[in-house]
Amino acid sequence: MIEAARRHCESYYTRSVPADGQIVITGAEARHIARVMRRGVGSVMTVVDGIGTEYQVELTAVKADRVAGRVLSTRVDAREPGHRVAIAQAILKGDHMAQVCAQATELGVSRVTPFLCSRVVGRLSSPRLDRLRAVSLAALKSSTRTVLPVIDVPFEFDRLLRLSGEFDQVLLAYEDETRAGLGAVLNRDAGSVLVVVGPEGGFDPAEVDALKAAGAKSFSLGPRRLRAETAAIAAAAMTLGLLGDLG
Amino acid sequence: MIEAARRHCESYYTRSVPADGQIVITGAEARHIARVMRRGVGSVMTVVDGIGTEYQVELTAVKADRVAGRVLSTRVDAREPGHRVAIAQAILKGDHMAQVCAQATELGVSRVTPFLCSRVVGRLSSPRLDRLRAVSLAALKSSTRTVLPVIDVPFEFDRLLRLSGEFDQVLLAYEDETRAGLGAVLNRDAGSVLVVVGPEGGFDPAEVDALKAAGAKSFSLGPRRLRAETAAIAAAAMTLGLLGDLG
Repeated sequence: MIEAARRHCESYYTRSVPADGQIVITGAEARHIARVMRRGVGSVMTVVDGIGTEYQVELTAVKADRVAGRVLSTRVDAREPGHRVAIAQAILKGDHMAQVCAQATELGVSRVTPFLCSRVVGRLSSPRLDRLRAVSLAALKSSTRTVLPVIDVPFEFDRLLRLSGEFDQVLLAYEDETRAGLGAVLNRDAGSVLVVVGPEGGFDPAEVDALKAAGAKSFSLGPRRLRAETAAIAAAAMTLGLLGDLG
Repeated sequence: MIEAARRHCESYYTRSVPADGQIVITGAEARHIARVMRRGVGSVMTVVDGIGTEYQVELTAVKADRVAGRVLSTRVDAREPGHRVAIAQAILKGDHMAQVCAQATELGVSRVTPFLCSRVVGRLSSPRLDRLRAVSLAALKSSTRTVLPVIDVPFEFDRLLRLSGEFDQVLLAYEDETRAGLGAVLNRDAGSVLVVVGPEGGFDPAEVDALKAAGAKSFSLGPRRLRAETAAIAAAAMTLGLLGDLG
């Protein structure tokens, strides 16, 4: 299993598509193959395109800025969940957004949408967003996923309300909801679910009303007070689990 | 809600029991009340004993090394889960044990048992164990729990096997289990569940056999490879959720 883990960790990412049975890897991924892993011509490795395709590739040319290989086999959507489960997470301070993006990617979440609302105190600068995407890519590789979750640019709250229409069900983790747990409100027939989690200080009641008016169903995660990142990961795991996508 | 959050965060911990209607707080907690929060005589605050009792207390004496107060009211087991869900986690490197202890405490886990097995590479020194307990105490306060989870000294693997007997059901997160998810194996009538999660490199097959012989049921968390800390928190959330203790 340690061997298996090592193999798993050594998958590479490329956005390029094969042409004439050859695939090309550039940038940091190429440098890693050539300089860190010191792979040579003839090496066989796993390459994923982040949109569901996984290739077994035999290297035919290795330079630090460009690695090329012959595609031996192709597999689509391996190990991906059958449902689209997305998290809309109010922007959090510190490294908590990175934790949400990493763990959500591992679990099989399809998309993380950072958003602004009245009690958000952090900001998501462009370098921070780049870091979230890098963290998600690293989690894709360690988890052996083949689809890279979309990490959105921060949404204004109004845009979050409109996003609701893209999902079969929208669930709102709400600390003042005391009646229904996630299991009671989740529609098991939904093909796509958006889970909305607020900022550290909670939602403004007017925002909760707006989300509910846009179709969101609120649910409780129990009487204890969860940190936002714990709520996001717990809700994502429970949703994927109840839909049959986590075991 | 921001006000509520602020109040929630300001609860204090004492192991002392009231005598003649007075309760005493010492050590770091007393310093925090006197020096950081600058609470004075007459202030009212929440004090928890970590074994299920929550007191409303009116301060009668405030010194940096000793704070005393009159107990106004007493409440038992508020906001605590109805089931004992514990995590046995093979010792992890870096700060991952702290993450497991913090998030497990928030979610309502009753106990975290770090253990040794053949592929454990980290060590849990006494200062590191102290830190895990401090992290868990901080999470107790932020989550408004009243029971402080037990964070055990590291168990040898043989002792982990004997621990199984203290729980109605023992579940083993096992990456080579492909048939049954957590929802399929969890006994909904169990009053206590121990969830066992291996180290970064996975269990040795002989350890899996030994755990199964001791009564553990293995379950899958899906075809993706989860980091151990993500597996622990996902499994804890799913178990508490399915038992009705998370909303």
